[in-house]
Amino acid sequence: MVKKRLKDILERVNSGHLSVAQAMEELRFFPYERIPHARVDHHRFMRTGIPEAILCIGKSIDQVKSIAQNILKRGGNLLVTRADEATYQALKDLDERMCHYPVARMITLIQEPCAETEGLVVIITAGTGDIPVAEEAKVTCNALGSRVDTLYDVGVAGIHRLLDEEQMLSRARVICVVAGMEGALASIVGGITECPVIAVPTSIGYGAQFQGLAALLTMINSCAPGVAVVNIDNGFGAGCLAHKINRIGEARRTAP
Amino acid sequence: MVKKRLKDILERVNSGHLSVAQAMEELRFFPYERIPHARVDHHRFMRTGIPEAILCIGKSIDQVKSIAQNILKRGGNLLVTRADEATYQALKDLDERMCHYPVARMITLIQEPCAETEGLVVIITAGTGDIPVAEEAKVTCNALGSRVDTLYDVGVAGIHRLLDEEQMLSRARVICVVAGMEGALASIVGGITECPVIAVPTSIGYGAQFQGLAALLTMINSCAPGVAVVNIDNGFGAGCLAHKINRIGEARRTAP
Amino acid sequence: MVKKRLKDILERVNSGHLSVAQAMEELRFFPYERIPHARVDHHRFMRTGIPEAILCIGKSIDQVKSIAQNILKRGGNLLVTRADEATYQALKDLDERMCHYPVARMITLIQEPCAETEGLVVIITAGTGDIPVAEEAKVTCNALGSRVDTLYDVGVAGIHRLLDEEQMLSRARVICVVAGMEGALASIVGGITECPVIAVPTSIGYGAQFQGLAALLTMINSCAPGVAVVNIDNGFGAGCLAHKINRIGEARRTAP
Amino acid sequence: MVKKRLKDILERVNSGHLSVAQAMEELRFFPYERIPHARVDHHRFMRTGIPEAILCIGKSIDQVKSIAQNILKRGGNLLVTRADEATYQALKDLDERMCHYPVARMITLIQEPCAETEGLVVIITAGTGDIPVAEEAKVTCNALGSRVDTLYDVGVAGIHRLLDEEQMLSRARVICVVAGMEGALASIVGGITECPVIAVPTSIGYGAQFQGLAALLTMINSCAPGVAVVNIDNGFGAGCLAHKINRIGEARRTAP
Amino acid sequence: MVKKRLKDILERVNSGHLSVAQAMEELRFFPYERIPHARVDHHRFMRTGIPEAILCIGKSIDQVKSIAQNILKRGGNLLVTRADEATYQALKDLDERMCHYPVARMITLIQEPCAETEGLVVIITAGTGDIPVAEEAKVTCNALGSRVDTLYDVGVAGIHRLLDEEQMLSRARVICVVAGMEGALASIVGGITECPVIAVPTSIGYGAQFQGLAALLTMINSCAPGVAVVNIDNGFGAGCLAHKINRIGEARRTAP
Amino acid sequence: MVKKRLKDILERVNSGHLSVAQAMEELRFFPYERIPHARVDHHRFMRTGIPEAILCIGKSIDQVKSIAQNILKRGGNLLVTRADEATYQALKDLDERMCHYPVARMITLIQEPCAETEGLVVIITAGTGDIPVAEEAKVTCNALGSRVDTLYDVGVAGIHRLLDEEQMLSRARVICVVAGMEGALASIVGGITECPVIAVPTSIGYGAQFQGLAALLTMINSCAPGVAVVNIDNGFGAGCLAHKINRIGEARRTAP
Amino acid sequence: MVKKRLKDILERVNSGHLSVAQAMEELRFFPYERIPHARVDHHRFMRTGIPEAILCIGKSIDQVKSIAQNILKRGGNLLVTRADEATYQALKDLDERMCHYPVARMITLIQEPCAETEGLVVIITAGTGDIPVAEEAKVTCNALGSRVDTLYDVGVAGIHRLLDEEQMLSRARVICVVAGMEGALASIVGGITECPVIAVPTSIGYGAQFQGLAALLTMINSCAPGVAVVNIDNGFGAGCLAHKINRIGEARRTAP
Amino acid sequence: MVKKRLKDILERVNSGHLSVAQAMEELRFFPYERIPHARVDHHRFMRTGIPEAILCIGKSIDQVKSIAQNILKRGGNLLVTRADEATYQALKDLDERMCHYPVARMITLIQEPCAETEGLVVIITAGTGDIPVAEEAKVTCNALGSRVDTLYDVGVAGIHRLLDEEQMLSRARVICVVAGMEGALASIVGGITECPVIAVPTSIGYGAQFQGLAALLTMINSCAPGVAVVNIDNGFGAGCLAHKINRIGEARRTAP
Repeated sequence: MVKKRLKDILERVNSGHLSVAQAMEELRFFPYERIPHARVDHHRFMRTGIPEAILCIGKSIDQVKSIAQNILKRGGNLLVTRADEATYQALKDLDERMCHYPVARMITLIQEPCAETEGLVVIITAGTGDIPVAEEAKVTCNALGSRVDTLYDVGVAGIHRLLDEEQMLSRARVICVVAGMEGALASIVGGITECPVIAVPTSIGYGAQFQGLAALLTMINSCAPGVAVVNIDNGFGAGCLAHKINRIGEARRTAP
Repeated sequence: MVKKRLKDILERVNSGHLSVAQAMEELRFFPYERIPHARVDHHRFMRTGIPEAILCIGKSIDQVKSIAQNILKRGGNLLVTRADEATYQALKDLDERMCHYPVARMITLIQEPCAETEGLVVIITAGTGDIPVAEEAKVTCNALGSRVDTLYDVGVAGIHRLLDEEQMLSRARVICVVAGMEGALASIVGGITECPVIAVPTSIGYGAQFQGLAALLTMINSCAPGVAVVNIDNGFGAGCLAHKINRIGEARRTAP
Repeated sequence: MVKKRLKDILERVNSGHLSVAQAMEELRFFPYERIPHARVDHHRFMRTGIPEAILCIGKSIDQVKSIAQNILKRGGNLLVTRADEATYQALKDLDERMCHYPVARMITLIQEPCAETEGLVVIITAGTGDIPVAEEAKVTCNALGSRVDTLYDVGVAGIHRLLDEEQMLSRARVICVVAGMEGALASIVGGITECPVIAVPTSIGYGAQFQGLAALLTMINSCAPGVAVVNIDNGFGAGCLAHKINRIGEARRTAP
Repeated sequence: MVKKRLKDILERVNSGHLSVAQAMEELRFFPYERIPHARVDHHRFMRTGIPEAILCIGKSIDQVKSIAQNILKRGGNLLVTRADEATYQALKDLDERMCHYPVARMITLIQEPCAETEGLVVIITAGTGDIPVAEEAKVTCNALGSRVDTLYDVGVAGIHRLLDEEQMLSRARVICVVAGMEGALASIVGGITECPVIAVPTSIGYGAQFQGLAALLTMINSCAPGVAVVNIDNGFGAGCLAHKINRIGEARRTAP
Repeated sequence: MVKKRLKDILERVNSGHLSVAQAMEELRFFPYERIPHARVDHHRFMRTGIPEAILCIGKSIDQVKSIAQNILKRGGNLLVTRADEATYQALKDLDERMCHYPVARMITLIQEPCAETEGLVVIITAGTGDIPVAEEAKVTCNALGSRVDTLYDVGVAGIHRLLDEEQMLSRARVICVVAGMEGALASIVGGITECPVIAVPTSIGYGAQFQGLAALLTMINSCAPGVAVVNIDNGFGAGCLAHKINRIGEARRTAP
Repeated sequence: MVKKRLKDILERVNSGHLSVAQAMEELRFFPYERIPHARVDHHRFMRTGIPEAILCIGKSIDQVKSIAQNILKRGGNLLVTRADEATYQALKDLDERMCHYPVARMITLIQEPCAETEGLVVIITAGTGDIPVAEEAKVTCNALGSRVDTLYDVGVAGIHRLLDEEQMLSRARVICVVAGMEGALASIVGGITECPVIAVPTSIGYGAQFQGLAALLTMINSCAPGVAVVNIDNGFGAGCLAHKINRIGEARRTAP
Repeated sequence: MVKKRLKDILERVNSGHLSVAQAMEELRFFPYERIPHARVDHHRFMRTGIPEAILCIGKSIDQVKSIAQNILKRGGNLLVTRADEATYQALKDLDERMCHYPVARMITLIQEPCAETEGLVVIITAGTGDIPVAEEAKVTCNALGSRVDTLYDVGVAGIHRLLDEEQMLSRARVICVVAGMEGALASIVGGITECPVIAVPTSIGYGAQFQGLAALLTMINSCAPGVAVVNIDNGFGAGCLAHKINRIGEARRTAP
Repeated sequence: MVKKRLKDILERVNSGHLSVAQAMEELRFFPYERIPHARVDHHRFMRTGIPEAILCIGKSIDQVKSIAQNILKRGGNLLVTRADEATYQALKDLDERMCHYPVARMITLIQEPCAETEGLVVIITAGTGDIPVAEEAKVTCNALGSRVDTLYDVGVAGIHRLLDEEQMLSRARVICVVAGMEGALASIVGGITECPVIAVPTSIGYGAQFQGLAALLTMINSCAPGVAVVNIDNGFGAGCLAHKINRIGEARRTAP
């Protein structure tokens, strides 16, 4: 939708219906807009293919609401991460259609849905405790248009649970491995699959797990090439990257 | 080549020219082979699309040579990383065609070259000191079949050097950002490109850079979604992942 | 005001209206004064150009109040940092004119305002969550007399938001860059400006951000020379240093 | 042998051929003996079942030699760890029968061999580079009397290499898993075996492996219960513990 | 009980009362069962001798309850760790016989008790504050069938308290040493006993104890060979390993 | 008092009024006493000159109370550290004379007061926030018999506040320096005094102070010889050591 | 000189002697120039007031030489840091006037000297071992045009050595404090001076100094406001920042 | 000697043989003297009772020599630490009586010997590898006048070796415990002795010992009160502090 609007502007310039100065004015306004406390980056979608999301950490509910309002006003898709119930209640005031995913701690409002990809993102967790982070990745992928399958609680202490699912793995175009504790699952998956693996360490564990540091180090040292790591508990980042990779394979379909 | 051989075996079983027991025997031998000190994983290529590479760290030259010999004997492609001059001299004895990339610290012998991809991997460095790691990624990509362009020494202290090259970035299907010091370049690139970004921290720097830890933390905390990180100085891993992602877009061409 | 009072004393000694012993007594009392739990350092302003501020961390409200009372009694300017609402209520009892900045978590009472500087301090944040620390720097600068402009939410994931404001940057005499997450903004700013850059890492982020450590390491390893770093979330220290630097350029105006 | 000698003394006391005072004297001398720079702990074997070994780190060759001489003089078994070629040359002067294991960096002289255990210790490595540490564990076990089988280079990037060897694992009474890089192998083994697993992290790897810290954290956070960890590269400690556990099962045979 | 059921299936196959296909179906179902959020690993007991336990960290009470229900339904033994009062109340609804150990933070329901071992596990703590972790190990051992004795508050600041109990130590087949603060007790015990020592660092302490890291480092560097370490506060893991080791000595009794 | 009782026993043995066996029995009971959860170390005072203190961290109020009761019953002096109001209320039930020091977080009951030393312990803090730790040291010293003077809030940002007090420093036999933030005060004091300096890092500060780690590192690296460091916030340990050192100088007075 | 050349270009455009296209071409070439391995950033001086320096870490001598040649060719000032004797020999081939500062490990060639500032930068070291880093700052300042005075070996173990020099401190416009060990000197200086303090931690020390980390943490936690920190051993960065600050006060002189 | 000379000056002032101005001049020169690269702190002995020592780390041999020459010229005692053979050869040129202690890595020249103390410093090591650090402490103590006894290689893996020497411990006025590996010895000694214990962690060990960090953390968390810690491998600091404490007990003898 943003792209279309931009094209409009440029074509009107081309056809002489818009002066360069007027176009400049519209475009200058395009990239981001100043609201108190934030500069909303409306054209991030054009640059990166990912709309600007609102990370609630460190922001007041009022700040979140005001940024969200601005995004919605221009017709953008809204992705809010690390959101609690109170934030949801506040955002529902803006638009009744607001979707809340309490396990994923996300709120979304997709005003301009993307076509669903043919390619499949598979999201795997080592344990039950890793599911919130996996759900954050899943909701993100879905919001961006990627088809997702999940495989939860297949950690390495019972490796047969994973090996039994080799078929699902083989259908994936990208795999996200979400694991806390020692995070060894990413290496196993990286060693048996052809597709890129995005490893997401989680803070699930205790003691020398150091809030996810142990899993992060395990994954970054993975002996299986083709594995890359995002921040601890960063389901949103994993979802974005998975979608970006997944999208690469879609060209095939859209080409005439 | 490995895939072809496997298909051969299975077809001979199907047509009755090979008994199940004989096939079992051949296949059992397939996956890996015991040589003293190592089990060469010949069918890793089949599982992951990446042949087994030899990381020289912690191995004697004789061990490297004996593993290499085994790989070559079966017609596999050879990738040796973190190799020094002495290792190259030893491997050249096995086959005169051995290629040495001293800056990348790699040795390769591609017996069965892959077709070059249409898709482009762009490899960027922040500084001159990061080039060896970038070259490791480049040689790896090339060996696996990915087309590569490089953009060296465009670090954030002179950000215009990067912005001037936006066109090259826009041609990329995947971008590897190789940076030491504070590693901020990955975030910048992640914020201006649509394609997946693989961030490679390097140990270039001093003091509180802690041999790459500072750059690693910067990259893993990147505020730009769509960035994932591999180990410090791990050009090989970045190259493998870049190729795996790049390959996803190739389907388009090979489909009838 | 403190300087004036000191000059008074010395001139009275010179003119014989005050004995050396009496002067000694007054001056001994000058530097600091013992109150229970604290020695208030009244002549810190004379030595360093910055009045003693009260950091509330680790102090009871009663201790803060008693130190504040002592400072006010002698006519000093009051700066209280990391103050909550309850502390404000307690201090308002001392003087109704007390100013509270809840976002900056500061309380001030400027009894002897300084002339405002001509030179400009520009304070930049990467995100909305970094604003409280930026506001602490701003309130501090204002209390000390420095003119301030702010530029919030211009982080590197949308670098054009910063580049659009190059003009404001060029008007600055000192720039404070306040950033959490990976803290890359300081390097960018350091690479495009002529003036000194004070980098303030914040604890905004999660996972491997380690409460600001990641941003701190990024900034301390900045590849752009002319960047120096203060403690995580230390807006007060950044404000003091910015003012000290800003003040250097003021001499020009005051000279006849 | 030490036990026998002690029994001798006590029986002579019992039968009146040795006075209590004389026995006291002999026994006092028993526990350890002062030589310059060291107190050799001769009765450690009696207390712990493991003779005192000489760790060469931080000792001069002369110190090692003098401690070894003292142990040999009393008929003890000699175990020297982290020994280089020069140390071996020096110790060979003491006794021509000295055994040198250069890969394991050990020197031994078994003057009183123990009966070999029926129980089997299986030692596994993830990679070729981990073999020196594994060999240290093996030589230690052998010197103490434990039967050992090894399984080298079966890391998780090709997990089938391990699963193919399930039969050998099932014959083990204790398993030592020696792994560098991300050290994930210990969790896998811990999840498929009934017997205790001793995990030995190694310093093999680079970058964020931090000389073995990453593997150590992985192993200590293992989600498979029944796994315990020794120090990085501590093959000797792993061997001692493996033997202590293995020995528990031997009672069965020696009972009448 | 699980083993018996498996044998049943196989014998019925052998005798022709069950087709291979039917057996496959039953066995496929055997290993684990999908319930929402978890794959219960019923045959973990067969593989590792330890039933799957439920670690409450990161799981909702509903998730814990649903996994527990599934385990109980199939007749398995239930071990729940890090459980609070509310979880206990929820699980008691499933079965009135549920046992709660509030100090150990565990809940168990042993439906098929194992015979008690002859061998003795001795669990030692350095201080009073380490008792909860020790009790977790004790309840675990008891649930698995191991006989346990405890020796609490015998830390090294009064080493005679330990030495006085040498007799109890000498009766142990395995010793667990649970210690916070500096964790030195493990080395002392390792130096005076013949049996394997499992060291459990605890987070008891303050300041530079870093939530157990100091004790962990002490124990992993123990100069006494035969000591291995589990995660900080991991009483459950220590109990499992102690039982696995203890069990090795039981064979003697069961042999005819 | 403990010493006297021991002498009694021994003299009765000597004079034949007590058999060796009876004495053994009494002495065996002497060292410590088993109560549930704890072994009270009554003769620690005899061995180390410091009675056993109760650190409340990780203990329930009931456990603290039961240990305290046991100590009081035998006439020992009671020192309880890190105690809150509720613990005080519980202990007051045991004996109305219980003394509570809320700032120091200590409770004491001195049943057998020691003579006050002539030698002086001086306790210095850098800031107001460090006072609780300093008070813990002071209460400890006083309970053990050492005379104490304090000098609070003389941190290095106003170094003259310290230099003005050189006279008090010169009267000290031992100095405790209690400092958070960067902890530089210990080096300054160590450089201007003849007497031993005990440095106590505190957790006062924020950001990269890392709960006292920064101050600890500063102090342990002090360029002034004669400075030693205890744990972060360990006022009790500092007080014990200060008293042990102070006591050395007392011999002079007590000698005839 | 660079500024002048730019002005030339623009004036020729203005007067019509240069077409816009030609100007574009010249200016495009201006910013940086591609040579193999590096993009020399010629207009960095214009943007930041600091010419691009060559950090030798991670660069081959040939790479350094080729970058230097390019800078010199365009008339720029050359600053090379962390340079050894061999690099100097190689650069002397380019131009005989090359200046080598072996203690500072720098090489410079000032082709267009700046006027010396009136303002004074004072550089202080705590010990003799910190001098190389201080000299790097000094040579940098001098090359940029700042007047420098030094005060070496005035560490806090003998604080009077510093206090005796208060007069020199009072003449400074900026102070660089270079200190290893515990780095306490920065706080002292920050507490007695009115001017900005740049703290430079050094790696001088041993043990828990952790190659400068202890000094870095001390300085970043400084209780004296107005202190900012650069990387460990980063004399060059400190010099650049000192000059940038010093320059602010120069305006006074150049104004008519 | 320094004290005597100072007294001389003051008495001559008192008696009128020296003017105040002349005295000022002599005294100003007293404290320290500028030589290139260093300010020798001659009156440190007066302030702290410890002469200034030369730590060779980070100093060239010429710098060491020039500082030593200056100290010797004024009749001071020379203590050089971390000195190698080459430094010794250089210093021997200054004075043939120079004493070299190669194990302790020290060089001394005692021009004005102190009377030997009656009090005894006992220095204990856990292992043979810790002896160099212990010898540094011993040579330092001896140079300052303290009587020393040593007890080497009595680590906790054979705790009876220590307990056998209780008598020597009971004769000590201060004990230095020097230990690497896990450093547990300090806690044991602290628990059985009445006198102050100075713990010196050493870098002896490997893997997770992290060059002494593990031993440092163990010691700083010691559960035995009355233990304080100096830097890793800091035998000199331990010796200074031991002497300062030992000296406190000497007053008794010198009093009439």
